Amino acid sequence: MNRTDAGYRVAVVGATGAVGREMVNILESRDFPVSELTLLASERSAGETVAFRGKTSIVQALGADVPEVDIALFSAGGGLSKERAPDFAAMGAVVIDNSSAWRMDPAVPLVVPEVNAQAAFAALKPGAKRIIANPNCSTIQLVVALKPLADAFGLRKVVVSTYQSVSGAGQKGISELSGQVTALFNNLDVNVSAMPHQIAFNCIPSIGSFLENGYTDEEWKLVAESRKIMGMPKLHVSPTAVRVPVFSCHSEAVHVICERKVTTKSAKAALHQGEGITLMDRPEEQTYPMGFALAGSDDVYIGRIRQDPMDEHALNLWVVADNLRKGAALNAVQIAEALDDGPEDDDE
Amino acid sequence: MNRTDAGYRVAVVGATGAVGREMVNILESRDFPVSELTLLASERSAGETVAFRGKTSIVQALGADVPEVDIALFSAGGGLSKERAPDFAAMGAVVIDNSSAWRMDPAVPLVVPEVNAQAAFAALKPGAKRIIANPNCSTIQLVVALKPLADAFGLRKVVVSTYQSVSGAGQKGISELSGQVTALFNNLDVNVSAMPHQIAFNCIPSIGSFLENGYTDEEWKLVAESRKIMGMPKLHVSPTAVRVPVFSCHSEAVHVICERKVTTKSAKAALHQGEGITLMDRPEEQTYPMGFALAGSDDVYIGRIRQDPMDEHALNLWVVADNLRKGAALNAVQIAEALDDGPEDDDE
Repeated sequence: MNRTDAGYRVAVVGATGAVGREMVNILESRDFPVSELTLLASERSAGETVAFRGKTSIVQALGADVPEVDIALFSAGGGLSKERAPDFAAMGAVVIDNSSAWRMDPAVPLVVPEVNAQAAFAALKPGAKRIIANPNCSTIQLVVALKPLADAFGLRKVVVSTYQSVSGAGQKGISELSGQVTALFNNLDVNVSAMPHQIAFNCIPSIGSFLENGYTDEEWKLVAESRKIMGMPKLHVSPTAVRVPVFSCHSEAVHVICERKVTTKSAKAALHQGEGITLMDRPEEQTYPMGFALAGSDDVYIGRIRQDPMDEHALNLWVVADNLRKGAALNAVQIAEALDDGPEDDDE
Repeated sequence: MNRTDAGYRVAVVGATGAVGREMVNILESRDFPVSELTLLASERSAGETVAFRGKTSIVQALGADVPEVDIALFSAGGGLSKERAPDFAAMGAVVIDNSSAWRMDPAVPLVVPEVNAQAAFAALKPGAKRIIANPNCSTIQLVVALKPLADAFGLRKVVVSTYQSVSGAGQKGISELSGQVTALFNNLDVNVSAMPHQIAFNCIPSIGSFLENGYTDEEWKLVAESRKIMGMPKLHVSPTAVRVPVFSCHSEAVHVICERKVTTKSAKAALHQGEGITLMDRPEEQTYPMGFALAGSDDVYIGRIRQDPMDEHALNLWVVADNLRKGAALNAVQIAEALDDGPEDDDE
């Protein structure tokens, strides 16, 4: 990538959304070398303001002309990414895209830096699409947790049940839960639009749309994206994705069957060594990860680590991460940081 | 049991609790043959009123003297059950106990009528303790769902992740969620007492107390009680129990590995034949069971039925039931109904 002494020219496309705003926050808080920041959104959101490094910037409408930038962070939906990411790439940018549009394209790397940072550099090779895909939120925290277990014990099968916050449905998901709770506590009618049913005081076992095999596309991302990121094309993942009435962070109950024997102790030791992981596992003190306490955090938090009651090859874990940060905006910025660091030397 | 023409003399012990009140409702709505209803509770709750068949009854304190009744429905906590259930049994009653006190006693049947109704009659044999245990809420709905699958395909392993409502923590759980939401929406401090942490807009992966093996006692009930009820002492159950900010109904994401091959279609056919089950599984119409819509219902509702993506012997399901009704009060009354029906003739 073209870095000047001042840093990179960065564009955030979809800057007014829940993830877009978090991208701007994270660029600032991690002191990413930004020489110039361009904030873009749809016509509808143009004119809104976003703060960056103490200044208020006005968000511009993304028109036919594409600005010349070094890095474009996209979080504006799959349709727009599909259509416009190539325009930014053609102008020399590396696009890091948070939508599902490019994730399963074999020519586009799908990257979680703790797991496969080196895969990102394929996007910079001559003739490459110059697009890197950011995985789905629930996949990112799952693979960060699985990586050290795969390295230490091998993976045979993963059963995952998710507890996903409404912020995964964007600002409108957050407003809908808040609005529904207010309505219910004031005996008013509940408005349902961002999710298929009332989410206030309810769990909805349906995120995204249904595929022919009976799984939702959200569930299938846990299968297909995990396989691609981990480089395990036959990894067995059996998923259930559920929306819960929580504002921040996704939680996952994960059952892992390993190739080799694993104990509670050896699993903790492996996870403790894992990148981007904080263990939070002192049940005797009622300490385990919880979404309401971890909003705004960066790591993947893991607790309730325990060997299966009847299988020395299996484990249960509870995995929590901020879906807007590690699950989206932070992972995208970490990909940019990995590109800035440059590839590992093969001789090392 | 001693039934007169007028019916049975029934006592409800713990009549002012969330489950006790539901027991009284269900005795009335199912027209159980009650000749006389005695409502009992602790000194603290004595004097409260409970409606039954259009009359308001005053709840009496349970003192040293035990009334002579035919059936005593206990829902007053394990300590009181352990101490006082034998007193009622000694006076000739059959005790149906909702606490965990007697569940694992080998001399006490643990009964879910859809699964093992005939086991209840052991409690009436000469020399028996005259106590029948009602299983834990999350176990009841699990075994109702597993029974037809066990019969049709055999069970090899069950992985279950629960999404349990605050009503499982009783009236105080309901008040705590409601109070915390009100406090948060008014910028007031949140009060935490019924659960170990804030439950409003949070998931707590801890119900009950922790055992040495790292599982909670709530999780271990799913293992031990399921084995006893299903008569499968080595059944492999791998559980995670999670409290979610929902008022009514427990949900469970259940992964079942069967002995024989199972398809989505054959699983649906088997579950459709199962007792006490309503299928609710039309994903194309966004129809699946959800807690907020099923409060007050009697059946175990099952949806999201789908074959595992990579294992022809495995299935995923989503199972929802009203934890105060099928998970507690209703199941207890159904046990009384089974006793009233009498044992099946062995020759049939």
